[in-house]
Amino acid sequence: MPRSSGPVDSPARLSLISRHLAPDYPLNTPYTVERHPDSIDTSLLPKTQIRAITTDAKPPNMSTQPEHPTLLIPGPIEFDDAVLNSMSHYSESHVGPGFVAVFGETLSMLRKLFQTTDPSAQPFVLSGSGTLGWDLVSANLIEPGEDALVLSTGYFGDGFADCLKVYGANVTQIAAEPGSRPQLPEIEKALTEKKYKLLTVTHVDTSTGVLSELKNLSELVHRVSPDTLIIVDGVCSVACEEIDFDAWKLDGVITASQKAIGCPAGLSISMFSGRAIQAFQSRKTPPTSYFASMKNWLPIMQNYEAKKPSYFATPSPQLVRALHTALTQIVAQGVKERFAAHKAASDKIKAGIAALGLKQVAANPDDQAHGMTAIYLPETVKGAELLPKLASRGVVFAGGIHKAIAAKYIRFGHMGVSVLDPSRGHVEKALKALEEGLSECGYQKA
Amino acid sequence: MPRSSGPVDSPARLSLISRHLAPDYPLNTPYTVERHPDSIDTSLLPKTQIRAITTDAKPPNMSTQPEHPTLLIPGPIEFDDAVLNSMSHYSESHVGPGFVAVFGETLSMLRKLFQTTDPSAQPFVLSGSGTLGWDLVSANLIEPGEDALVLSTGYFGDGFADCLKVYGANVTQIAAEPGSRPQLPEIEKALTEKKYKLLTVTHVDTSTGVLSELKNLSELVHRVSPDTLIIVDGVCSVACEEIDFDAWKLDGVITASQKAIGCPAGLSISMFSGRAIQAFQSRKTPPTSYFASMKNWLPIMQNYEAKKPSYFATPSPQLVRALHTALTQIVAQGVKERFAAHKAASDKIKAGIAALGLKQVAANPDDQAHGMTAIYLPETVKGAELLPKLASRGVVFAGGIHKAIAAKYIRFGHMGVSVLDPSRGHVEKALKALEEGLSECGYQKA
Repeated sequence: MPRSSGPVDSPARLSLISRHLAPDYPLNTPYTVERHPDSIDTSLLPKTQIRAITTDAKPPNMSTQPEHPTLLIPGPIEFDDAVLNSMSHYSESHVGPGFVAVFGETLSMLRKLFQTTDPSAQPFVLSGSGTLGWDLVSANLIEPGEDALVLSTGYFGDGFADCLKVYGANVTQIAAEPGSRPQLPEIEKALTEKKYKLLTVTHVDTSTGVLSELKNLSELVHRVSPDTLIIVDGVCSVACEEIDFDAWKLDGVITASQKAIGCPAGLSISMFSGRAIQAFQSRKTPPTSYFASMKNWLPIMQNYEAKKPSYFATPSPQLVRALHTALTQIVAQGVKERFAAHKAASDKIKAGIAALGLKQVAANPDDQAHGMTAIYLPETVKGAELLPKLASRGVVFAGGIHKAIAAKYIRFGHMGVSVLDPSRGHVEKALKALEEGLSECGYQKA
Repeated sequence: MPRSSGPVDSPARLSLISRHLAPDYPLNTPYTVERHPDSIDTSLLPKTQIRAITTDAKPPNMSTQPEHPTLLIPGPIEFDDAVLNSMSHYSESHVGPGFVAVFGETLSMLRKLFQTTDPSAQPFVLSGSGTLGWDLVSANLIEPGEDALVLSTGYFGDGFADCLKVYGANVTQIAAEPGSRPQLPEIEKALTEKKYKLLTVTHVDTSTGVLSELKNLSELVHRVSPDTLIIVDGVCSVACEEIDFDAWKLDGVITASQKAIGCPAGLSISMFSGRAIQAFQSRKTPPTSYFASMKNWLPIMQNYEAKKPSYFATPSPQLVRALHTALTQIVAQGVKERFAAHKAASDKIKAGIAALGLKQVAANPDDQAHGMTAIYLPETVKGAELLPKLASRGVVFAGGIHKAIAAKYIRFGHMGVSVLDPSRGHVEKALKALEEGLSECGYQKA
């Protein structure tokens, strides 16, 4: 597998740089610089190697990565070679034309991933964990004393509520029993009782594998409480579950790099609607965070996408290059195809789990995520006993984390190359390890 | 150059994983898990290749990186091959024993870099830009309505003041003229007029190349206002300027990965004293950030350093591995030797600049940083004219960013491998490009 960014012959590269260091172009400036994006010739920029994703059987072990345990937790996931190679890209200026073009393209490709063509929608890519997305929402889109309705399907719904409270929001929570999700009539009742500035929903709660329904929820909110912003925690859903940002009239989706997008951890990624940006811009009080302030980042993101260098805080060129490579692959495949491939793999995995006589935490098939499965253990088997048996077979699953049921279940992440590149054989390996591990623990299907 | 983490033979690795997946060890749990750090055998973990740093002349172009312009801006800097290779480490669980050991060692090595042996001092490594360090200080160590004294030597001092204000601090600023720094008598006067919760000083302001004096400043603060916390913005100084955390009785030093530490951007790195942690723990009001909250991160950092898996938000295993590689090199060389090497290179560079008849923004030699130089242009030469001429010679310098003098100067970063590995020839290349570029702009030394 070639490096994601092969060497460009030196004279061509120098010519490129020289050409774009036009007069009135101060390098590394914190001030916005007006340039014409059309004047950037990207033909000489390093091109990403797009790994063809096919369903043809290929010989295994084509990866250039050293042999290692197969990571099948619900994030970080296994990464594509080209994405990992982009991580070791040589150093470059965060305001130089090469990186600015890559960052700009990255932001534009996010619009395709989120399926939005609305020019007022705004993507953000910040250095940070996925959790930073909660701060981005809480510090900018709601003011102290305003009301938020949090729909919780597990640990991460509760976390979003905690974050909103830190920033002074009055939080009302509708929490479902582990394995289910708040139902529309209950949500409608809450929305009619109080005027909420925003509603948050965890699309897939990584602690339970419960999938929330966004389309019908959004229709309900727009019908009953049309001024309420609809904010989706898509950390475990973006790039593996259908999200139709425009058609579903969403106002914000926050996510992270290391799950279905398939880029190493370290980036907070989000998309906000024009209505959300408007809500931010009409705040009566200033944002209550500095690093997570839309005031500081909005002009930077707009400038980068317009291929204009701009500075608030130093981005990570290596992580952004890796994200660029991952998104290039996603866009090349097509997002609808990607969602369908994740669903097909999930159906197969869930059938395999059922065939072993195991139940899922998410009981109702309509509530089951397609990028991970939370699996109840047989009563006679402990996770602490089973997980090492999977590990000894080269498969890393995650333990349970929902307080109420933590010891009773395990989690199997199936996102990205592990399901899109069948030549890796990850799904078969995992199901086989699960069957053998359970058997070694004395379990036999009833 | 071998990859930083070579493959370990599969049975040994599986045995390692199996052995450490002890009972009561739930993988990927957000809850703290008590384990005995001594029980981890790190002998089978991937070892970092330590690149020998010598002053012997070596043939150039030993780097495995593709040919590219030499990045000599004040960060990001050029990176070592082994550090870059660590960036493309295969995916691993953020709570698995291999990564937990690496993160724990990384935190412990930071104590050596900051020269602290005080067990109450606390290192933090968070996903984010260096700017996140300002939020860490402002959201945790000072409460709304309390007073902060900000010593400003440029753009970044002003930024720290802005951040403190966002979190409700009353900020008094002592700002120096561009190229100089606030003087001790003036600071003493301010400290006697009001009781400040904390004082901030930018060790090296990247906008001016002005070096602030920490030792005498700390003695003054401890004499005149002993309860005031001393916070250092060390983004452009940590790992190239002497910082003696314990001996100088500092309370906080914040920095970033991509400058003299020599690891790609994306990590906020800091060290706080026991006194600072105590100030945080005795707050009357809760921290006013979620992602930058010490309440959320303190137990996580303490657990990782004790080699216990722990979760608040997903760290970036790749960036932390790269930081581990960089710190391993720094510790192997010795921090005193590293500071001395940066000073020697800086002296040589500054002599070269003087020989060209150029003046520095930092006029007083005692105020001049050792990891960068801000250089006034001859009156007849514009930065927008000179920088492309340097770029055409394969050297990337930065333009000016201090509002008052932005068009009148350029900046030359000289940190990390560019000065520690003479075989790269970066310093000579840069000085030659500067001389030729100026000559091409019509400048002749008077």
